[in-house]
Amino acid sequence: MPTAAIITIGDELLIGQVIDTNSAFIAQAFNAIGLQVQSRIAVGDVYQQIWDTLTDTLAKNDIVILTGGLGPTADDITKPLLCKYFDGTLVTHEPSKQNVIDIFTKLNRPIIARNLQQAEVPSTCTALLNKRGTAPGMWFEKDGKIIISLPGVPHEMKGFITEDIVPLLLQKFTFNAVEHRTLLTAGVGESFLAETLIDFEASLPSFIKMAYLPNYGMVRLRLTGVHANKTILTDTLNQSFLQLQQVVAPHLVTTKDEPMETVVANLLLQNNQTVATAESCTGGYMAQLLTAKSGSSAYFKGAVVAYDNQVKIDVLQVPVQDIIDHGAVSETVAIQMAQNALTQLKTDYAVSVTGVMGPNGGTPQKPVGHVWCAVCNKNKVATQLFTFSFDRQRNIQLTATFAFNFLRKFMLQNN
Amino acid sequence: MPTAAIITIGDELLIGQVIDTNSAFIAQAFNAIGLQVQSRIAVGDVYQQIWDTLTDTLAKNDIVILTGGLGPTADDITKPLLCKYFDGTLVTHEPSKQNVIDIFTKLNRPIIARNLQQAEVPSTCTALLNKRGTAPGMWFEKDGKIIISLPGVPHEMKGFITEDIVPLLLQKFTFNAVEHRTLLTAGVGESFLAETLIDFEASLPSFIKMAYLPNYGMVRLRLTGVHANKTILTDTLNQSFLQLQQVVAPHLVTTKDEPMETVVANLLLQNNQTVATAESCTGGYMAQLLTAKSGSSAYFKGAVVAYDNQVKIDVLQVPVQDIIDHGAVSETVAIQMAQNALTQLKTDYAVSVTGVMGPNGGTPQKPVGHVWCAVCNKNKVATQLFTFSFDRQRNIQLTATFAFNFLRKFMLQNN
Repeated sequence: MPTAAIITIGDELLIGQVIDTNSAFIAQAFNAIGLQVQSRIAVGDVYQQIWDTLTDTLAKNDIVILTGGLGPTADDITKPLLCKYFDGTLVTHEPSKQNVIDIFTKLNRPIIARNLQQAEVPSTCTALLNKRGTAPGMWFEKDGKIIISLPGVPHEMKGFITEDIVPLLLQKFTFNAVEHRTLLTAGVGESFLAETLIDFEASLPSFIKMAYLPNYGMVRLRLTGVHANKTILTDTLNQSFLQLQQVVAPHLVTTKDEPMETVVANLLLQNNQTVATAESCTGGYMAQLLTAKSGSSAYFKGAVVAYDNQVKIDVLQVPVQDIIDHGAVSETVAIQMAQNALTQLKTDYAVSVTGVMGPNGGTPQKPVGHVWCAVCNKNKVATQLFTFSFDRQRNIQLTATFAFNFLRKFMLQNN
Repeated sequence: MPTAAIITIGDELLIGQVIDTNSAFIAQAFNAIGLQVQSRIAVGDVYQQIWDTLTDTLAKNDIVILTGGLGPTADDITKPLLCKYFDGTLVTHEPSKQNVIDIFTKLNRPIIARNLQQAEVPSTCTALLNKRGTAPGMWFEKDGKIIISLPGVPHEMKGFITEDIVPLLLQKFTFNAVEHRTLLTAGVGESFLAETLIDFEASLPSFIKMAYLPNYGMVRLRLTGVHANKTILTDTLNQSFLQLQQVVAPHLVTTKDEPMETVVANLLLQNNQTVATAESCTGGYMAQLLTAKSGSSAYFKGAVVAYDNQVKIDVLQVPVQDIIDHGAVSETVAIQMAQNALTQLKTDYAVSVTGVMGPNGGTPQKPVGHVWCAVCNKNKVATQLFTFSFDRQRNIQLTATFAFNFLRKFMLQNN
């Protein structure tokens, strides 16, 4: 079966200035068609290192894909390198030249030589037109192997992968079927889960593997199957997945590879209901998660981010006396925030959080990670105290996830 | 000069299920002390591949750091592999055993054998106590090279790097001084910048490199210098950086490596002023960016996320007639949102956005990417129409960044 390696190019990846999201996207797209990615390598803008890494990975894989280093500036060395590597000369790719002219004309910007050079490609490659930018993609074939070079700009790269690379690879190769099944559990640790799953794991056929992916106080379990026969794979994997669901049933949140907010969103959509958030310490993070997908207006109406106490009083109409008596981080204030958000935003449910995210602002009574959460509908309110002990970013993420899980359970019980 | 390689382990990295943020963090920490990272490699939970990658990278580097594969479950194979690779036997690390017992006692969970096994390490390593979890770190030395293995859980790994690994490396090695200077420009393309910077780039000494990092409609420029003499490096780099600032002055946003929202936050802090956001299409993303750092309550009071029109009317008091006459995505509504947020949240500035983020909801008059932004103080309001043509996530990010930039310019002009 063919395998692939992903090489991402750029000094910024090696000094940690940017996080490499490109190779995750490519890996996902390749895995979806059954092309196994063996390694992902990030190297700097260093000629010899790129050259050596290309040679190494070509020796071990059938397909090597490179992203980055195709820009118009001096630190972009991928194109001349590939031209030399595959014994070509730089020639103009006419459709790409026209593309550059069209883009700059539309933007009403002058076209300089540097821009037109973007349309040049090695004579030994098949050039791929960039529908989202100026630098063309390049497809080389040599000794039965395929080498692909794409721009590093994420939305350009993604367009190439989806519209060009995947269809071309499917023409060239027959892949093993690869499928994944993922479920999410909450309220149980990885070790404890592993104990309850010993027999299940032992019973899995050799072509199915299970992985534990703990994150945000929850554990995701993933089954991955690889088999030449797609029907056998799908049937066996479905069967194993059903067994797995039964074993973890008390802790099961969802049987899809989706985040907690999507579980909540789908529950709201099913019931044709809406939610609002009243956020202090999460600063709008929960609202942003709920609106990350198109169509969220069907279940999410809005939020009040009451970061300052005066906003809790003025906009969310929390009584001043409650804040004086109990503090802004208190069960009483959380309840007021949720109930007033429900009334003001006219939703079926509201969820509120008020807490200390750190690193500053903690007290002995209310240390960093101390968070009150309230959820309500028009008949009932429920509260929960969370205590986290991480850094600010993680405390915010955990607060959002735990609050959504609390809302989910409330909805299931009070619908 | 010593160099390092980073190996991250886990099938989830090769199927693209998670994005590798660990290696960016490690790269940043290593670069900060002058330890150059030559490559970052992600490999699956496959014994032979981990073995081979370790051998390859050890041949080319002085320091190899591995993360992941140290959990308590069957797919975690890093520890037995390292035990074999460095000819050891598994022995209990007593402080780590006590740590496991303490953690489970505190959580009131039963301690099972699998948990105690977490405290076992190869006899050939120096074990490092995990202050944030159960799996200890491991430090091996062999033939003058150093091999470090850390858990893949991000906050555990980060603790180890900051508190253990960096101090230990500084004891062992003398590094070249490495420094970076980064500035941010807005409103000008990469090619155009490159043209204006030809002379500047040519004038740079050989130990200083410049990189272009375009993102979110802006271009970041980074100077990186490497030199044995820290004083020479700092002085020369400061001088070059001043020259660079002069060349790009008309487009300069900040001379620090910081995002746009931090530039806005610092401007507010300097002036002892506050801001509120009124967000429709960004769904709380702007508020969340402003509250990502501790201390944000000094400049950010809160937000109204008016995703649904009824919330614009009920909470932000946008006149119904304005929505009927102009539509929710309009200059008029953007102005109403900003001005009413300013009044209700009692801030010095307010910024609003209302637009179509896609992929659905566009019309010929107001296509996806069509966004109205308004910023105001008590005396003045200014508006701008943005037009983006990307996917939903990127449209949201660009809207936030452009709105913050618009607010920044408004503050500079109307303070």
